[in-house]
Amino acid sequence: MPERPTLAEVADAAGVSRATVSKVLNGRHDVSPETRARVEQLLVEHSYVRRGSAPDSDGRNGSRRMVQLVVDTLESPYTLELIRGVSDAADEAGLEVVLSQSGGVADGRWVQRAAGGGRRGLILVMSQISEEQRTTLAGAGVPLVMIDPLIVPDDVPSIGVTNWAGGLAATEHLLELGHTRIGVLAGHPDVSTATTRVHGFRAALANAGLDADPQLIRPGDFGFDLARENTKAMLTLDRPPTAVFATSDGQALGALAAARELGLGVPHDVSVIGFDGLSLSQFSSPPLTTIQTPLADMGRTAVGMIRRIAEGDRPDTMRVELSTRLLVRESTAPLRA
Amino acid sequence: MPERPTLAEVADAAGVSRATVSKVLNGRHDVSPETRARVEQLLVEHSYVRRGSAPDSDGRNGSRRMVQLVVDTLESPYTLELIRGVSDAADEAGLEVVLSQSGGVADGRWVQRAAGGGRRGLILVMSQISEEQRTTLAGAGVPLVMIDPLIVPDDVPSIGVTNWAGGLAATEHLLELGHTRIGVLAGHPDVSTATTRVHGFRAALANAGLDADPQLIRPGDFGFDLARENTKAMLTLDRPPTAVFATSDGQALGALAAARELGLGVPHDVSVIGFDGLSLSQFSSPPLTTIQTPLADMGRTAVGMIRRIAEGDRPDTMRVELSTRLLVRESTAPLRA
Repeated sequence: MPERPTLAEVADAAGVSRATVSKVLNGRHDVSPETRARVEQLLVEHSYVRRGSAPDSDGRNGSRRMVQLVVDTLESPYTLELIRGVSDAADEAGLEVVLSQSGGVADGRWVQRAAGGGRRGLILVMSQISEEQRTTLAGAGVPLVMIDPLIVPDDVPSIGVTNWAGGLAATEHLLELGHTRIGVLAGHPDVSTATTRVHGFRAALANAGLDADPQLIRPGDFGFDLARENTKAMLTLDRPPTAVFATSDGQALGALAAARELGLGVPHDVSVIGFDGLSLSQFSSPPLTTIQTPLADMGRTAVGMIRRIAEGDRPDTMRVELSTRLLVRESTAPLRA
Repeated sequence: MPERPTLAEVADAAGVSRATVSKVLNGRHDVSPETRARVEQLLVEHSYVRRGSAPDSDGRNGSRRMVQLVVDTLESPYTLELIRGVSDAADEAGLEVVLSQSGGVADGRWVQRAAGGGRRGLILVMSQISEEQRTTLAGAGVPLVMIDPLIVPDDVPSIGVTNWAGGLAATEHLLELGHTRIGVLAGHPDVSTATTRVHGFRAALANAGLDADPQLIRPGDFGFDLARENTKAMLTLDRPPTAVFATSDGQALGALAAARELGLGVPHDVSVIGFDGLSLSQFSSPPLTTIQTPLADMGRTAVGMIRRIAEGDRPDTMRVELSTRLLVRESTAPLRA
């Protein structure tokens, strides 16, 4: 069983008295800036949580009954499905969800609000958080969990999916259909979610004894427009791919549009597979074969982690990866002889 | 200028003393059930709002800085775009958004929370609310605004779009392209948003001296599956329509799928026009011609109304309808000779 860090442990580690740690936690001014910084840092490292943050033990008008959910943007259906998972799980636990948009690290009013409002915890989706912001949250005893962080931190609990295994499964599906010349819409090169999916692709090719053609791996973003352009560029090469692996459903829709604009049929002339399994992927023409990610489960898992940390448990692991699965619909077909 | 209803006005209308109204507002028990019911009813009718609910004058730990947003479901991209509008406007106003799913009228815990938590106001999306729930909110001084209510109430401020004018514009677009035999995916017959769009369709036909063919007006819901079935049924009639007007983008995607499954090209063989202008409508193959509704503006307008009512203004009007506009993309084309 993970031990719950105590105020005494933090005090020992910082080489100060318990009273000093208590002063830092209570925002008192009679602590030197250097000591305060050292104690706050250790509070973060020890994932220290006040005892007062246990369920219902806080009298501050129900603020501890609220979870702050901070999303990078409200423009993507991906986000909607995560919100649903968080909302369902919070509802079951008798918690309410306060929703904010992060507006980038620079803004960060949501950190002040979550800390000042004494929230049960903060769930951060596809965003970044500065060291200073983390210290603010830790000082206020507000646990932090990240979903799909842009860069996976090693000292904040985070939730993602098995991106590598998903990339592998998508590629193996295309290889089984006879495709060996596969184009990749690789997503943003700085986002680990995307690059890990591409690593899965490379592994599947290597397992099959094939080399990846650099011309067929196109970096971009997770969106539609750039994916359409990149797909058009690949499909008009002298030796075009017979299948496209898109590292997101949004990019896969761009690939469908590119094929249509070039007068190519999907899957007759070119197969397309997506990634994410958004609900909209079933409504495209043709419906997308994709890698289903359990978005709602990710939201639920985040709420569960917040609750356990708030109750004083240290998380068993800093990184939870939920499984993906291949969902075969109509956008992939055997290679034509 | 609209007058702000006072406690004295409500007392006069109820034929009781101000002290009695005050007791009802404060949840005191020394009021008879009949008197309480009459006063609560009048509080609703007069849209009474406590003075204490003016901005920042409430000390209850910032609850008055929160707006409760209650949505019927978190499954539709339609909802996501409304949430964005509410979130943006709340952010600009320094308010936070507490998000809940309504879970039907029967559940209604959100009403207790909004009332008990002393929220700045409650915005209800595509849902219903009982008389009793409205009384609870009014008694707690929590203003209510509805977005796209299933049935438009005449005594609760509500926000919608010009559904009739949108239905008219969609149909006129098809008529101008030469289509006279137009199928309609009519949405749910009990939802006024949908039926009003169909009335716009009928008006456009009548203006052109045409009769509507009852075989070509198919009730359903706002979803994909039933729309696909209904479109297939229409397109396999002896005299099939040459164009389909879908009263939602979700239904339009169903129509695209039906055409594809029948081997018909859109817009070459059949034109399809949607309604709502969801962001996903630009990513279908082909991109949808649709009636753009200002979803984010509806969310913003709701927050604005909540703020004004909470500050003591009576709304200028109980019903705000925001304009729609025709957005021509690639799913509609001239009738082939």
